[in-house]
Amino acid sequence: MPDINRLSLNQYTTFNWTVKEALEGCARAHLDYACLWRDKILAQGVEESARIAKELGIKISSLCRGGMFPAATREERQKRIDDNLRAIDECATLETDTLVFVCGGLHSKDLDGARQMVYDGLAAITPYAQERGVKLGIEPLHPMYAADRNVIVTLGQANDFALRLNKEFSQYETPVGVVIDVFHVWWDPTVYDEIKRAEGHIFGFHVCDWITPLPDTLKGRGMMGDGWIEIRRLREAVEEAGYTGPIECEIFNQELWDRNGDEVLELMKERYLELC
Amino acid sequence: MPDINRLSLNQYTTFNWTVKEALEGCARAHLDYACLWRDKILAQGVEESARIAKELGIKISSLCRGGMFPAATREERQKRIDDNLRAIDECATLETDTLVFVCGGLHSKDLDGARQMVYDGLAAITPYAQERGVKLGIEPLHPMYAADRNVIVTLGQANDFALRLNKEFSQYETPVGVVIDVFHVWWDPTVYDEIKRAEGHIFGFHVCDWITPLPDTLKGRGMMGDGWIEIRRLREAVEEAGYTGPIECEIFNQELWDRNGDEVLELMKERYLELC
Repeated sequence: MPDINRLSLNQYTTFNWTVKEALEGCARAHLDYACLWRDKILAQGVEESARIAKELGIKISSLCRGGMFPAATREERQKRIDDNLRAIDECATLETDTLVFVCGGLHSKDLDGARQMVYDGLAAITPYAQERGVKLGIEPLHPMYAADRNVIVTLGQANDFALRLNKEFSQYETPVGVVIDVFHVWWDPTVYDEIKRAEGHIFGFHVCDWITPLPDTLKGRGMMGDGWIEIRRLREAVEEAGYTGPIECEIFNQELWDRNGDEVLELMKERYLELC
Repeated sequence: MPDINRLSLNQYTTFNWTVKEALEGCARAHLDYACLWRDKILAQGVEESARIAKELGIKISSLCRGGMFPAATREERQKRIDDNLRAIDECATLETDTLVFVCGGLHSKDLDGARQMVYDGLAAITPYAQERGVKLGIEPLHPMYAADRNVIVTLGQANDFALRLNKEFSQYETPVGVVIDVFHVWWDPTVYDEIKRAEGHIFGFHVCDWITPLPDTLKGRGMMGDGWIEIRRLREAVEEAGYTGPIECEIFNQELWDRNGDEVLELMKERYLELC
C-alpha cells in the first residue's frame, strides 16, 4: 500500500478552487502536499500563496509549469526564457525545489528544430535555477500533444535531454530530471526500461487514469481505477528506481471539476490507497 | 515530386461511398489503386467488389483490416483468429497481397498480456496467409488508441513483432511487415531510425495530416498540408528504406466525408503532388 503522507493534490484536480481554497482543502483532508499552478498563484499572489501554505503546514511538491520554449523569432524565444526565469523565482518563494516543464509545441513543421529550441531553452535557465535551488523536471507528455503542447513525448526522449543537460552542466549535481505521469507514458513499450534509466533523476510522479472513450483530449483524464493503467506497477517501478518523493494526483476532467472539492479529495485518497 | 501512379484512395477517405462508387470515383480520377475496407466489401459482396475493380482496372493496394486479437477467453480469441482467416480469403479474392492489421486493444489492464495475444494471433494466421499469397502488415497506431484499438503503438514495436515473426516463420520469405501511416508515427523521436530498421519489410505507406486542435480522436485527421506533419520527409525516408509501392491517402474526417467525393479526390491528388 502506498504511503498516504506522500500524496499531493495537483491543484488542477480541483480546478475551480483558488490557491487558498485548495490549500485549505488539503489541510481539511490531512494532506501534507499540494502542487500549485502558475495561473492560480498569480491570481492569489505568489507571496500570499506561500504564506497560506506555510500557515497551514502544506508543502508545495512542485510548481506547474515552466516550458513553452519553441517560438518563431529569437525575441519571442527570449520572452519565453524570461518567463521561465520568473517561474524559478516563484518556486523559490513557494519553497518548492521542483519546476515541472511542459516544453512547448510546434510553431512550424520543423519538429527537430522545435526540439532543439527546447534543449536550448532548458540550457539557458539551468544556471539560474541552480542559483535559486530549483530543479528542472521535464515531463514528457502523451504524443497526442506533440503539435500543440509538448514536442517531448516519451520518457526515453526526456531521459536523453536530462542526461545531456546534466552532462553539459556537470558543475551542478543533477540540475535536470524527469517527471513521470502515468497518463502520458503508460502505453509505451519501453516505459519500464526507461524508468530504470531515469534512476537518480526522477523529480516527480503523477497519477490519474486513462479512460475510454476519451472524453476530450485535454480534459480527458480519469480518477485512478476508472481506466486502464497499471498504476501500482508503474509506482513500484518508479520506487525501484529510487524515487521516494511526493505522488501528485493530477486529473483534468470536467465532470470531476463540477463536483464538490472535498468529495473529490476523499475519493482521491481512497483510490490512491487502493490502487496506487 | 511523388509519382501520381502510386497514389491509392483509402476508401475511408470517402466514407459515404460504397465500394462501387469508390472504385468508379478512382477510375474517373485516373487513379491506379484503391484500398478497400472489410465492412464495405462485405456490404458490396466480396466477389462483386473484385469483379468491379477488375473491370475498371483498379488494383487493390491493401485490405483494411485484420487484427483485434486480444480477448478475455480462449474461445473468443479463436473467433477473432477465424475472422482473420476469412479476411485473408477476401484478400485473395480481391487479388491484393496485403492485409493491414489494427491489432486490437485491451480487455483487461494487462497490457503485456494483450501484446502477447497479438503476437500469438499473428503467428496463428501466418501459415494460412502464406498459403493464400497474402502478407501481414502490422500498422502501429497512435498511442492515443492503445487502450481501445491497438496495443501496438510505435514503429519500433511493430518492427520488433515483424522481425520476431519472420524469424519464427523463416521457412517463408518475409511473411510479416509493417504499414507506416504518418498520422500514427510522425511524433516519434525514433521514427527515422525505425524506418531504416524496417527496410525489407515495409508493406504500406499512408498519408494524411495532424491538425490542431484535434477535432476528434477517431475522425480527427486532416488533408495533407492542413497540419503539422513533415510528410515529404517521411515519404523520402520510407523510399530510402526501399519501399516503392502504393501510397494510400487515408483520412477520417467528418467534414471531408460530408463533401462531394470527386472533389475530395481532386484535392487529394493536388495535395499529394504538392506535399507528399
